[in-house]
Amino acid sequence: MTTAPTRSTGRRRNPTTRAAILATAFDVVAELGYAGLTIEKVAARAGVGKQTIYRWWPGKGALVLDAVLERTTGAGAEAAELPDTGDLEADLADVLVATVRELTDPAFDRALRGLTAAIVEDAELARLYQERLDGPMRELKKRRLRSAQEAGQLDPGVDLDVAVDLIFAPVAQRWSERSGPLTPEVARAVVRHALRGLALPDPPR
Amino acid sequence: MTTAPTRSTGRRRNPTTRAAILATAFDVVAELGYAGLTIEKVAARAGVGKQTIYRWWPGKGALVLDAVLERTTGAGAEAAELPDTGDLEADLADVLVATVRELTDPAFDRALRGLTAAIVEDAELARLYQERLDGPMRELKKRRLRSAQEAGQLDPGVDLDVAVDLIFAPVAQRWSERSGPLTPEVARAVVRHALRGLALPDPPR
Repeated sequence: MTTAPTRSTGRRRNPTTRAAILATAFDVVAELGYAGLTIEKVAARAGVGKQTIYRWWPGKGALVLDAVLERTTGAGAEAAELPDTGDLEADLADVLVATVRELTDPAFDRALRGLTAAIVEDAELARLYQERLDGPMRELKKRRLRSAQEAGQLDPGVDLDVAVDLIFAPVAQRWSERSGPLTPEVARAVVRHALRGLALPDPPR
Repeated sequence: MTTAPTRSTGRRRNPTTRAAILATAFDVVAELGYAGLTIEKVAARAGVGKQTIYRWWPGKGALVLDAVLERTTGAGAEAAELPDTGDLEADLADVLVATVRELTDPAFDRALRGLTAAIVEDAELARLYQERLDGPMRELKKRRLRSAQEAGQLDPGVDLDVAVDLIFAPVAQRWSERSGPLTPEVARAVVRHALRGLALPDPPR
């Protein structure tokens, strides 16, 4: 069977259709896992043609990435700043405890597992994930840490990418490898020790 | 088609056949990724029957796990102790720099990506991974940290699982998400900051 793709002249996205496709993709990956998700299934459930999806996303990796991104940051919302009350440890503990809550939500857990597994094996999807989701989030985290450096709460010589990894990787890995309990207490302990390790060598008392 | 599985009376493994199957499985996952590996392909390349593989491993997840385990710890070798020269930072930096070297070896990188991706989505395989590979490694790491606690180099109140995550998760996540350069310098910076964060609240001078 040969099908000439029907090229729409305008490739502008209809926001309602786009939101419906992304919500459906999120549900499908949460239900069937990444391997079980096909563009056909998403199209059928969302009530759109396959070509509509392929016109906007090059493949299922990009589609699932956008579905998770949409659910994380909210429809069209600007990525939020990290809280900055002046108390770095309390602010980061709030963020990490919220992360634990999100990761232990069953639907989010399964969808994010699908995306994460795909990223581990697919270098191009990992690049897209860095560009669209992890990179912007990392910038927000670094901005908060820079503000702490300026306030004299963090070693000014520390590599901020290492600092972000030290604070955020332990909870992420515990989740992805199911290597231990994911509780608010663990999140707070990680922040406490990580910040102690990133503080000035001789903290002012 | 119905196939009555031919049950061998002796289920003892032939060590040479076992090693050949595991080496082949490692090569296949390194070459084709986890999705591309099938028991059929491994059997054909290793020159054994499919039933031989199914008799010893319940599925491809368990097979790939053993293939990576065999390559990591060496054939039949006991898992090694972590170095203990008395200099905790130098010892852990050595371990983490060796990890970076292993993760950036192309064949090991691809095989481990296959296993890691599978673990993220498959809870039963994650359990097996914890039992067979991550758990024993974690015990060795905790033993080294306990020795440091006894030497007064680490906070005796710290949760050793949190300590292990703080020291080892940042490099693992940078590798799995390709979120930044994986260099010996990064490994050393992680160890330095993590240990500072896990030291006694008031280090003796």
